[in-house]
This record gives sequence, C-alpha cells and structure tokens, in this order.
Amino acid sequence: MASYLITGANRGLGLLMVSFLASKPVTEVDVVIAAVRKSSEALESIVERSNGRALVLTVQVTDEESVRKFDEEVKKVLPNGLDVLINNAGIMQSSPNAELGIEAMDNLHDHWNINVNSVHLVTKAILPHLRNGEKKTIVNVSSALGSITLAPQYMFPPTPAYKISKAALNMMTVQYAAYLEKEGFIVFSIDPGWSRTEMGSDFADLDPKEAAECLVKKVLLATKEDSGKFFEANVPSWEYKGGPTRYDGHILPW
Amino acid sequence: MASYLITGANRGLGLLMVSFLASKPVTEVDVVIAAVRKSSEALESIVERSNGRALVLTVQVTDEESVRKFDEEVKKVLPNGLDVLINNAGIMQSSPNAELGIEAMDNLHDHWNINVNSVHLVTKAILPHLRNGEKKTIVNVSSALGSITLAPQYMFPPTPAYKISKAALNMMTVQYAAYLEKEGFIVFSIDPGWSRTEMGSDFADLDPKEAAECLVKKVLLATKEDSGKFFEANVPSWEYKGGPTRYDGHILPW
Repeated sequence: MASYLITGANRGLGLLMVSFLASKPVTEVDVVIAAVRKSSEALESIVERSNGRALVLTVQVTDEESVRKFDEEVKKVLPNGLDVLINNAGIMQSSPNAELGIEAMDNLHDHWNINVNSVHLVTKAILPHLRNGEKKTIVNVSSALGSITLAPQYMFPPTPAYKISKAALNMMTVQYAAYLEKEGFIVFSIDPGWSRTEMGSDFADLDPKEAAECLVKKVLLATKEDSGKFFEANVPSWEYKGGPTRYDGHILPW
Repeated sequence: MASYLITGANRGLGLLMVSFLASKPVTEVDVVIAAVRKSSEALESIVERSNGRALVLTVQVTDEESVRKFDEEVKKVLPNGLDVLINNAGIMQSSPNAELGIEAMDNLHDHWNINVNSVHLVTKAILPHLRNGEKKTIVNVSSALGSITLAPQYMFPPTPAYKISKAALNMMTVQYAAYLEKEGFIVFSIDPGWSRTEMGSDFADLDPKEAAECLVKKVLLATKEDSGKFFEANVPSWEYKGGPTRYDGHILPW
C-alpha cells in the first residue's frame, strides 16, 4: 500500500500514470494525488471512477507561494507521509526559427524555470512528507534528449533549450540522490520514451498508455540500486529499429 | 595573429589569461579584449603595459541590452572579426546552510543566470564577429564539478547549484558545437583546474598563473577534433595524488 504524487497530471503521460495507478489493487496503491495547474475532463473522469483513491490538487509549480499552499493540502490528504513523488510536469518547445541556428534560441528561461527550478521547488517542499513515507522515492521525468553523451545522435529535434534543461535536471537528480542517500531515499531520472501525446506528436514511437504503464512499473519495482541513475524506458513490445533508442530500460549515459 | 575576447577578466583566471595573452608576440596575438562588469587596478595595469594590445570593455553579461551595446563596441575594435571567445565569467556559491541538506539550495537562479544564460547571451551576440574571424573558436570555462558522471566523487564542495549550472553549460557547449560544426567552428568546455584564486580559495591545488597559462595553451592549440568535448586542465607540473583529478588534459566524462 503506497501513496503517489504526480505533477503535470492533467494530460499526457501524467494523466495516464494516474489512471494506471488508480486501477491497481488497494493493497498496492491507496492514494494518487494528481498535481495540476488546472484540471481536465479526462482527469476528473478518472477521479470519479477511483472510489476516492485518486484526487486532484492544484498548484503552479513555478510559483514558490503556490507550492507552499499545495504542500499544506498534501499534508491534509496524507498526514502520515507520502511514498513516491513523480516530477512529471515539464515543457518541450522548439527554438523559434530553429533553422536560423542556435543563436535564435530564445526559450532558455522557460525551460529552466519549468523543467529544473520547479522540480526543486516541489521536491524541497514535499521532502518532509516523503521522509515520513515508506518508499522515499523521487522520480524525475527526464529525456534521452538530455543525455550530453547522446546529443550528437539526437540533433534532429530542434529543442536545444529543452536538452539543456534536462541535462541540468539530471545533475539535480544526482545531487538529490547523493544528499539523501543516507536517509534511504531512491532518486532517479527516467526517459519515459517518445510517445504519441500532445508533446510527443503523432509521429512518436510509443502508445502513450503503454509508455505510462511501463514507467509506473519501473517506479513500483525501484530499488536503492537505481538511485542516482538515468534509465531509458522499458517497453518490451518495442521492436528495436537501430539507433540509440532501444526502450529496453538500460542505464542511459549522462 | 589572432584576437581574443575573455569575459570575467577583472580578476582571477580571466585576468591572468589576459595578462598571458598580452605577453605573447604580436605574431600570435594582436588584440585581447577584457570584458568586465567593472575594471580593476590589476587589469588596468596590464592594459597600460600592453602597448594597446589589451583593452577593457564593460558589459553586464546577464543583461541583454548591455550585451547588445557591448557587441557594438566589439565591432568598433574588431571590424574584421574576432577569432576566439572565452566565456570565463561565472560564479560559484555554496548553498547557504548546506549542512541543512539539498532542500536549502536557494541559489539556483543566480547560477543559471550567470553561468548558463549569460553565456548564451554573449555568444549569440558575438557570433557574427566570430564568423568573420579565422579561428572560429568558443571556449566555455566549465568545471569537473559539472560532470554528472564524476558527481559522486565530487560531493565535498557543497555547491549543488554550481554543479547543476555547469552540467547545463556542458550541454550548451555540445549544442553550439553541433549547430556550428558545418561552419568550421571549434566549441569546447574546459575545466580550468582548481587554483588559488578568490573563487578557488587558498586550499586549492594550482598556482593560478600556471593554470591560466595552461588553459590559454590549450586554446592556442585547439583543433576541430576538440569541438563538442570537455577537457580537464593540462598542468604538466602537477603530481598526481590519486582520485579523479589528474590535470593531464584528458577528456572528462559528461
């Protein structure tokens, strides 16, 4: 029996993770908090069907004051602590006029603020609840596009600011993992895979429902050995087509 | 004969790099621009002794409007282009009360703004001059503390925000290198070594003058093979004492 908090859960992978967790037996999952800037019909529908196990809390993750109020709500829902935090909220935007070159990149700040700074704001606020929980697990949804090693192979998406922000997020994962190791925390980064969500486009590799379920399965089986690492999605149905993307759950290089 | 522009050149390694370059024969170095927020006595003294080869231009690297004005001054000084840009300006601050844990980190924004965003602001502004130059070289002064791979071995400095910012800078280096490769640019990150500057403290490994000279030597010998990579300082006098720091100029892992 464990409790989960997922940010950016009004659509896409976050929504599908909430849905999958809420479908689990109560012996595995008792509460799933969907943290959203604004709820959605799809999310409300999941909540209605969840017998009170899924619930929505609103938060603007980039706003420290909003995160503080959110933190108070989390405490009311989970007075005995939280088990797992999944930092899933994020943006991926192309640099406008990417064909003009790297010098046209004008969205560094937004990526930094939403993909890096807000993860710190949420995590530091939620940390006391995680300390009271059993699983003490923090999952940062990153991207293989944030692998500096693989960057030369992933130049086709014209999203340099996103890549820079995810590399920074990966270092933050490692810093959190190291600082919290002695308290028994598990902190890791994961590439959820490129799936056919609004962010991923229709041309993406994976069915988003399957990608969300595979991500949750990784989280459910996480061990201390996983802490401080960076995993590719593990999607057994995927047929390897060459290139860097295997979807076999291997450890990605930084 | 080549021209150089070094940011953060009023003290520390930046100042010593200006000094070393200005001491080179005019056949190797014709102009060195010291870009500073505010000049210093030490810098003015170098400029006075340089026979007009070193000069100071002021710029607030975090301020886009200031960078734009600076860019106009650079153009006046170097109407025929710039050869080498060394992005050296940066900060390294401990998280206040680091013993309170990673959640006490409250200086992410400053590190991001100065160590990452300002490098983009300066580089994109200066890029047209570098395109007109011969060497087309951009050097980002990074740090082994920004290596995510080595992070578990470099936990002793309580500077998580600095480490996160330098990991982001390294990805920015690789993005610039990839975008500019077809134009013949050389773009790399380098760890200047831990030297006894104000930033490095009296307990550091290296004499800062030697560290600055070794860094400049690496820049003078840079080739296209170096682009997109991350180098440790190469300080031949250093006696290896075990651990991750060798100062032998090897390629650092991301």
